[in-house]
Amino acid sequence: MKPSTRQPAGYFFDDYAIGQTFAHAVPRTITSGDSALYQALIGARNPLHCSEPFAQSLGYPSVPVDDLLVFHIAFGKTVPDISYNAVANLGYADCRFIKPVFIGDTLHATTKIIGLKANSNGKTGVVYVRSDCFNQRDELVLTWARWVMVHRQADASLPPASLLRNTSTGLPVEASPLPIFDEFVAPAQLESAIQFQFSTADSGVVERATGGTLFFDDVALDQPIKHPAGMTIDETDHTLATKLYQNTARVHFDSHHMENSRFGRRLIYGGQIISICRSLAFDGLENALTVAAINGGSHTNPTFAGDTLYAVSTPRMKWPLNANVGALRLQLDGYKNCDPNLAEFVNVSADQKVLSLDLTVLMPRRSYST
Amino acid sequence: MKPSTRQPAGYFFDDYAIGQTFAHAVPRTITSGDSALYQALIGARNPLHCSEPFAQSLGYPSVPVDDLLVFHIAFGKTVPDISYNAVANLGYADCRFIKPVFIGDTLHATTKIIGLKANSNGKTGVVYVRSDCFNQRDELVLTWARWVMVHRQADASLPPASLLRNTSTGLPVEASPLPIFDEFVAPAQLESAIQFQFSTADSGVVERATGGTLFFDDVALDQPIKHPAGMTIDETDHTLATKLYQNTARVHFDSHHMENSRFGRRLIYGGQIISICRSLAFDGLENALTVAAINGGSHTNPTFAGDTLYAVSTPRMKWPLNANVGALRLQLDGYKNCDPNLAEFVNVSADQKVLSLDLTVLMPRRSYST
Amino acid sequence: MKPSTRQPAGYFFDDYAIGQTFAHAVPRTITSGDSALYQALIGARNPLHCSEPFAQSLGYPSVPVDDLLVFHIAFGKTVPDISYNAVANLGYADCRFIKPVFIGDTLHATTKIIGLKANSNGKTGVVYVRSDCFNQRDELVLTWARWVMVHRQADASLPPASLLRNTSTGLPVEASPLPIFDEFVAPAQLESAIQFQFSTADSGVVERATGGTLFFDDVALDQPIKHPAGMTIDETDHTLATKLYQNTARVHFDSHHMENSRFGRRLIYGGQIISICRSLAFDGLENALTVAAINGGSHTNPTFAGDTLYAVSTPRMKWPLNANVGALRLQLDGYKNCDPNLAEFVNVSADQKVLSLDLTVLMPRRSYST
Repeated sequence: MKPSTRQPAGYFFDDYAIGQTFAHAVPRTITSGDSALYQALIGARNPLHCSEPFAQSLGYPSVPVDDLLVFHIAFGKTVPDISYNAVANLGYADCRFIKPVFIGDTLHATTKIIGLKANSNGKTGVVYVRSDCFNQRDELVLTWARWVMVHRQADASLPPASLLRNTSTGLPVEASPLPIFDEFVAPAQLESAIQFQFSTADSGVVERATGGTLFFDDVALDQPIKHPAGMTIDETDHTLATKLYQNTARVHFDSHHMENSRFGRRLIYGGQIISICRSLAFDGLENALTVAAINGGSHTNPTFAGDTLYAVSTPRMKWPLNANVGALRLQLDGYKNCDPNLAEFVNVSADQKVLSLDLTVLMPRRSYST
Repeated sequence: MKPSTRQPAGYFFDDYAIGQTFAHAVPRTITSGDSALYQALIGARNPLHCSEPFAQSLGYPSVPVDDLLVFHIAFGKTVPDISYNAVANLGYADCRFIKPVFIGDTLHATTKIIGLKANSNGKTGVVYVRSDCFNQRDELVLTWARWVMVHRQADASLPPASLLRNTSTGLPVEASPLPIFDEFVAPAQLESAIQFQFSTADSGVVERATGGTLFFDDVALDQPIKHPAGMTIDETDHTLATKLYQNTARVHFDSHHMENSRFGRRLIYGGQIISICRSLAFDGLENALTVAAINGGSHTNPTFAGDTLYAVSTPRMKWPLNANVGALRLQLDGYKNCDPNLAEFVNVSADQKVLSLDLTVLMPRRSYST
Repeated sequence: MKPSTRQPAGYFFDDYAIGQTFAHAVPRTITSGDSALYQALIGARNPLHCSEPFAQSLGYPSVPVDDLLVFHIAFGKTVPDISYNAVANLGYADCRFIKPVFIGDTLHATTKIIGLKANSNGKTGVVYVRSDCFNQRDELVLTWARWVMVHRQADASLPPASLLRNTSTGLPVEASPLPIFDEFVAPAQLESAIQFQFSTADSGVVERATGGTLFFDDVALDQPIKHPAGMTIDETDHTLATKLYQNTARVHFDSHHMENSRFGRRLIYGGQIISICRSLAFDGLENALTVAAINGGSHTNPTFAGDTLYAVSTPRMKWPLNANVGALRLQLDGYKNCDPNLAEFVNVSADQKVLSLDLTVLMPRRSYST
């Protein structure tokens, strides 16, 4: 069903049909070089991703690749087919990390169009997709839904949105039901936690490796954790990261083109903001070792080179999964140029909030080691 | 024949003699870290260099190192002995990629002086060299010629250029014949294509991995392919790349020194412009999997941090080499701050063209898989 | 003895007691990716760290990790517990590189408080520490002492410094003797040289790999070696390096916070200045293959993005250690924005000197191969 007329410059809204599937190009073997560069770019310190003995002490055969690096690489694969001509990435839902990925694994990804909604302005539409990422054994390692605003082709011969028809059903696109997502990933779906992770964890070993004293059983809900550090992002920081992910969305790379855009400059890839906020959250949530799910999230304001990021985490729900590990649903908020630890934060303005992310992390439990 | 008086600050024009040979220092083992950093710096997506299964499907034992990374590392080795005091790199010829290089291989290089021409200004001369790069088994992997303008030593005791004598022949340097190069590498010389590459390629497999539908047999000559993306280069982008290549030419690194130069700032290493234009050319020439030869080329204008690069490829000649693969001679032109896809390009000025490169790439053929 | 009330934002002067020991978090497996990124960030060319065959020709089983990368990673581990709230790193002493570290080794570190001195201003104190770094077999690979000025907590309930008591002895902190360090590491203590390094070196092999003709026996004492190159540091250069080291000191990363500091901007991590000066020193001291000790040193002025560094080495003492190798004590001075090779250097001002480092390097001897 892939259009035979694909242009290197990507698709537009009118090129898509419900049920259409893309097998994205550029399979990628993840090397220790990729992992080292990612870690340095975001200042990661989670020992699960940088200590072979620690990973083995948790039952992993070797160091697993950082969940968010897997996400960014998988996401990057989808850009040429889905969001090369995107106006904005509107939201994520039901993102689940199914299996760990290791150095030497090769990832590829597919995307299915699951919803289409033409906007009334006639210039853009919203494309809803489900993307899946697989390893070299075709095992699903990651799945997520997102919706993205895409330009319509500037072509007078195109039918108006109200006449577009779903290629599968023949029904008008406007009549197709849009997908509905759960508010968050249910604990029963956090398969990775049950099957793969922390099989042999000991909270004393974990504390020595992470430096963190807060375990799953200690977490108080609805108490914000203001992470102490801030991190300034410079131009090469984010373009190097986004090129590492092989994400080609031009808004991040082409300052000549962006001079004439609304903001007059390159935008930082939203996924990089997620990674940096997660890295900042290490100080205070050292034992939130893996990301099991991204329940939803939005980039509430754009971020530019020179901005300094801060993060606040607020635990919202928690579920013990087994004797070793629990799942913690967190609200992770990112701010720019306003430190939540200082008095200035009472004056933080709405346009300084850059990230609102609802994610579920896995934390070892304290009890099983005492 | 290596001068025993070598200074750490490099040689000057009058230090060279025809036939003189340099065994360059600093052998280099290429790691997956080098490869990952290179890929991220230029935004490469060619799956031959980032997917182990894809490389193996083409008959390679493992992922080969990007040809241009090999070139830059080999080139970097020659800088301390050849172009540390260069004014400008004037041209390349007869550059042939002989054998693939793999992660773990160790490269070293030699250079022979093949021509000398003192300039009439008495201050500079042109040095013609042939450089060869070998792996740890002393197998030739890459060979190229270049000519470079080098300062004469500011030393009144030196003979005028007209009295310089070739140390081998005793003849005046001015009388030495300058080397003559073919316009392009003949297909019969593209040894690597015949012996090493694409032995088991299947164009269906290739298309799924690269996303490209244009195969050797489909290419129309003399039809420019305007690549859709642009890429802005920031200061750390190019200095980090050039340090990765262990290229020490000071014009790239020392802004204090460059403040008093003609341009008042650091220059970007021309090889980096080649790499970025090749990376931009992936969208549209996804199946141009390897570089077999650089026939010639020049850096027509300098590039600086902040410039945005665009690329246009024009196929000029094509030769089927065997049932699996053909060679395509391309003109690759690079422009700064003017997008060839936009109307503004009719006003592109001569000083916005930064690269004119004549190269030969290898592309799988479509026919053998149908 | 680790305080149970540890905050993610680090400790203050009054939290420390003599004899207290910290087992730092975040063990780190060093990968070829870490090594490649380090090499590119500082422009390193020492073939011992980038050529597998050369390392093996010296008797190493494989490429050892650059000594200073080991130092920075070990140092980074200590920051959260020791210098997160540091005003300034005042000095180093008795730093010894005991055993080589290889790709795949996992490092962890401990620190013991060995001296405390409250400053009379009541706002800061000096903490003297001994830090040790171990590999995954708990073998000591590196040890060093440093002293650092740390803020006192802004808390009226704290006792004045004069009443602080050592938790071990019960004596007033002011009465504790401060540690005394030797001026330099004695040759007998350079264990690594004797036991591990250059066991099979041949100076002809070394010269071909390094390009350097100056061997241990050739070095003239008290003759400054002005290294020819300069290197400009941009913002991403130093933040990427410091994040690679997992060093979290906020003065390097948070430009929003630093806007209100004395300098109004981010400071470059002093260790990065050491690495860059050592890299610049390769041209002229190509055969100074490893660092055996850092005898002492100070960062005499801060360095900022945009500054260009230059280096001058002055050999001060030399000791033959065995038939293969000698130890050379060097004074390594770093300057910013003033090239020691130019006439301008006579006007260099005191605030342009950024590094005064006293280190001992190991160099192969010429004699044993003739």
